[in-house]
Amino acid sequence: MASTAKPDPESIKSEEAPAAPGPRRSNYSSADVALRVLLFAASVTAVVVMVTAKQTEIVPVPGLPISVPLEAKFSDSPAFIYFISALSVAGLYAILTTLASISIISKPAHATQFLLHFALWDVLMLGIVASATGAAGGVGYIGLKGNSHVGWGKVCNVYDKFCQHVGSSIAVALFASVLLVLLTMLSVFSIYRKIPK
Amino acid sequence: MASTAKPDPESIKSEEAPAAPGPRRSNYSSADVALRVLLFAASVTAVVVMVTAKQTEIVPVPGLPISVPLEAKFSDSPAFIYFISALSVAGLYAILTTLASISIISKPAHATQFLLHFALWDVLMLGIVASATGAAGGVGYIGLKGNSHVGWGKVCNVYDKFCQHVGSSIAVALFASVLLVLLTMLSVFSIYRKIPK
Repeated sequence: MASTAKPDPESIKSEEAPAAPGPRRSNYSSADVALRVLLFAASVTAVVVMVTAKQTEIVPVPGLPISVPLEAKFSDSPAFIYFISALSVAGLYAILTTLASISIISKPAHATQFLLHFALWDVLMLGIVASATGAAGGVGYIGLKGNSHVGWGKVCNVYDKFCQHVGSSIAVALFASVLLVLLTMLSVFSIYRKIPK
Repeated sequence: MASTAKPDPESIKSEEAPAAPGPRRSNYSSADVALRVLLFAASVTAVVVMVTAKQTEIVPVPGLPISVPLEAKFSDSPAFIYFISALSVAGLYAILTTLASISIISKPAHATQFLLHFALWDVLMLGIVASATGAAGGVGYIGLKGNSHVGWGKVCNVYDKFCQHVGSSIAVALFASVLLVLLTMLSVFSIYRKIPK
């Protein structure tokens, strides 16, 4: 009982004294690594779900009394192609920066320079991923609802599974954008923390 | 001649000593203010050009032998409405942060805290503006080229002036996104510069 109520003061000291700057730095770094791994997972998921969005349906040909099988796939829309390119780049970026972030934990000597580069590149990536998500979302919304003003018919009443894939992919990409915002904020905050008050 | 070749050493000292940290800081701050003023101008331009994108054309009604005047306007597309909302928010944000940035130049005491908040909010704004630009771009591209796979006809062969407005507005919004990337990078770099080497 006595040992749990009053632990040896020296053991506390030896545990806390060198750990004081340690845990905080490794907290930031491990949050960074975790977010980057999540970003990689989200990017790959978005790309895979979008690429596998294929559905063949038998649709009537307008003006003729016949129906033909027609396949819907992501490459029908330039916005979806841009989406896949952007998310692939983000996935590649996530692998590279995860490795760089892990290298910071083991060798914290150049951590500040790394953080600066992380912040600068994360911002660029955010711009690319956010615009790709917006483009795919804008086109996907027309597919879902159509646009009666210009006579663009909806697609998702026929190609339901295709639209489910596209919608899920866009949702995951939105999550990836949020992750990139958080990553940039984390890098900025880590740099800010190094300024002596 | 002697006075220009060998100027009074005291006058140099009094000029350079307090100016050493001054010009560099004011360089960053004035670049920040200039970029924010540009961001405001770009946002307002994008919104105004998009809102004024109205064109009425006489188009034939499909299936009937009559033609009716039809107006194309930005509110026909949800993507353009999102675009205008996002760019309006960015314009408002640009005014507020320009004032804040000017206040830093006059009172540099809390500059670092301001820079941190600038960096954090700029990133969020970038996400919003980039996604809005992407969404409007994706929809605008369908209007320009159509999409034969799903039978979405092009619009810009009829509503040429409308499309010119939309295209210009998207181009200006892309410029605003680039400005936001630069602004975030500038804030991050200004914070980084304050870390003692």
